[in-house]
Amino acid sequence: MKKILVLGSTGSIGLNTLEIARSFQNKFKIVGLTSNNNISLLEKQIEEFHPEAVVVVNKEKAAELKTKVAGKCAVLSGEEGLLEITRRGNYDILVSALVGFAGLAPTIEAIKQKKRIALANKETLVTAGEIIIGLCKEYGAELIPVDSEHSAIFQSLIGEKKETINKLILTASGGPFLNKDKTELEHVTIAEALKHPNWKMGNKITIDSATMMNKGLEIIEAFWLFGLPKEKIEVVIHPQSIIHSMVEFIDGSIKAQMSSPDMKLPILYALTFPERYNFSSVKTDFARINKLTFFEPDFDKFTCLKMAYHAIEEGGTAPCILNAANEVAVEKFLSGKIRFTQIPELITDALEKIVCHKKADMPAGEAGLDLIFESDFKTREYLTKKHS
Amino acid sequence: MKKILVLGSTGSIGLNTLEIARSFQNKFKIVGLTSNNNISLLEKQIEEFHPEAVVVVNKEKAAELKTKVAGKCAVLSGEEGLLEITRRGNYDILVSALVGFAGLAPTIEAIKQKKRIALANKETLVTAGEIIIGLCKEYGAELIPVDSEHSAIFQSLIGEKKETINKLILTASGGPFLNKDKTELEHVTIAEALKHPNWKMGNKITIDSATMMNKGLEIIEAFWLFGLPKEKIEVVIHPQSIIHSMVEFIDGSIKAQMSSPDMKLPILYALTFPERYNFSSVKTDFARINKLTFFEPDFDKFTCLKMAYHAIEEGGTAPCILNAANEVAVEKFLSGKIRFTQIPELITDALEKIVCHKKADMPAGEAGLDLIFESDFKTREYLTKKHS
Repeated sequence: MKKILVLGSTGSIGLNTLEIARSFQNKFKIVGLTSNNNISLLEKQIEEFHPEAVVVVNKEKAAELKTKVAGKCAVLSGEEGLLEITRRGNYDILVSALVGFAGLAPTIEAIKQKKRIALANKETLVTAGEIIIGLCKEYGAELIPVDSEHSAIFQSLIGEKKETINKLILTASGGPFLNKDKTELEHVTIAEALKHPNWKMGNKITIDSATMMNKGLEIIEAFWLFGLPKEKIEVVIHPQSIIHSMVEFIDGSIKAQMSSPDMKLPILYALTFPERYNFSSVKTDFARINKLTFFEPDFDKFTCLKMAYHAIEEGGTAPCILNAANEVAVEKFLSGKIRFTQIPELITDALEKIVCHKKADMPAGEAGLDLIFESDFKTREYLTKKHS
Repeated sequence: MKKILVLGSTGSIGLNTLEIARSFQNKFKIVGLTSNNNISLLEKQIEEFHPEAVVVVNKEKAAELKTKVAGKCAVLSGEEGLLEITRRGNYDILVSALVGFAGLAPTIEAIKQKKRIALANKETLVTAGEIIIGLCKEYGAELIPVDSEHSAIFQSLIGEKKETINKLILTASGGPFLNKDKTELEHVTIAEALKHPNWKMGNKITIDSATMMNKGLEIIEAFWLFGLPKEKIEVVIHPQSIIHSMVEFIDGSIKAQMSSPDMKLPILYALTFPERYNFSSVKTDFARINKLTFFEPDFDKFTCLKMAYHAIEEGGTAPCILNAANEVAVEKFLSGKIRFTQIPELITDALEKIVCHKKADMPAGEAGLDLIFESDFKTREYLTKKHS
């Protein structure tokens, strides 16, 4: 029985994780759940999974839930609650599925507890990749990617040596606007941007897919996770999302991992690695799929991709600024305050205006986190004021 | 320096092997070469690679070559020459690339020498799979597949456990007649049958691709190589031959190995496994490939596929009869004696008329080989007489 703590249990990855726990009741025990606000769903999850503790980030909602579930489980609150529940350490695997930069601090706590981290929160590596990788080594924590792309690469690398990698090929669906002209993007609506062709995901990541910043963040994530130079990380558009990503080796051979798009597969693998459990709910029938297509990404239309490579080159807190700006911009787009094409504009603005701490100027290891939190804060502050 | 003995060095796999040896002169040393008849090419190969010994199966040609290369290398002759050169044991890897059933006996000699066998001769496993797998275990010989399909499966299984395999998915180009009606097959010419859309290969295997018996033989080969029931071995038509085959695991995840079609890749891998060598001559550009397609195979048109599954079910010497009949039939087709559609007819005829030794009636282990040689002989004799 593996004990699992799910950060973000009412989100898309969280719900899929619980569905897996439901399918493997003799393998996984849910010991902790968290939500920002959704206490009605969290209450149902408590009824079903009987966790030892839950966190509600919103303090009022936490108090409300506390009265409802009194005696059934501990209810913590606030961001400090997220830190506390990870610090308690009574779990084997952390499913890190918070949205955005908020995932960083609690993930670090789990690393210090030497746990396996099933990492769905890509911002953790995007903003603090070097520190996170260092901490994992220092504490002996295991980082298993949950993103379907990184899981595909991780799986393709099983039994292979890092020095035999020629390049990573991240596949990208291209999102809902793959076939729109650059000029048409000016006028797309929130509803259109939220219609992902293949994946059912949360709103933030769905918008990131539409701008292709999601792939940009994944490039940065892969850079840290697999320790390769950015020139060895390519993107290819593959609208069907069947091939989840590929690795080309130095002998010219390419390995790939595939399946019908369903996040349960990479989540399950992150929980069971190096084992595989019998899970028959996801079927892939190639004869029915019939066709897989591939295109070069349009870097002129999807400028977020270019920005991601640029942020890696800049290094230091540049990826953190990129990420914070993107989070603010997506939020503003989702609340109708800016147009879709303003998302990359805001990010460019932030990257130009916010002081980027260079790697050379940052203290080594965990001490560097302060500057990352500072860059994150300043970026949010700047964009919130400027575009309020 | 790995010492390599190439059985069938003037054939397609042999030439590709020598091209690899040429590219890695500080890694591989060619110590032996063989050819049935082609002494002019073999002489050039001797000049270039300086093997210790060569075999020419045709005895007259062998004598002719002997006078030409006197003092440069030993020249053996006949099928006994093939056995002798493998028995000498002064090599690390045997590249088993003879065409057809002739590959079986010398491959067994190499197994007994406890060598690595880079197996391109699929008939070895098709006709005597159980015995070969048993001998490899007994002598501690290593069998690494060279067929692109089996190499793809082998590579996809690196680091994975056999019990987590759900099924193998062999890809098939469908050959030159994929889009012809069954009735049109009656009138296809030899030249048409020899035009493979993707792979440059020898004549025998190219005709096998046109009838899809090649895929049939590969099903049987996979059955022995990976030790799975036939129900777990599927075929999907994939005309571009980029995905060389796939493995579906019990969790629903699929792994695949891919590349532009070039036999040098699986040959190199069989030589270097578990390492990979830097080899940049084969490039795969997905954006340029643009499209991969998949279809169910038409078992009514390509009856050879059905026959292969049937032969596995029959067991004993049934696959041997199937293979011998196919070899005779292909030869007859290539020499203009029968029509293309008569190939499966001859095989069906042989499978009905030749006594199949059941597994239960065969002595265990190597002793069973006698009945395999007998079935092979009787099938050839029967079909040669009947359709002469």
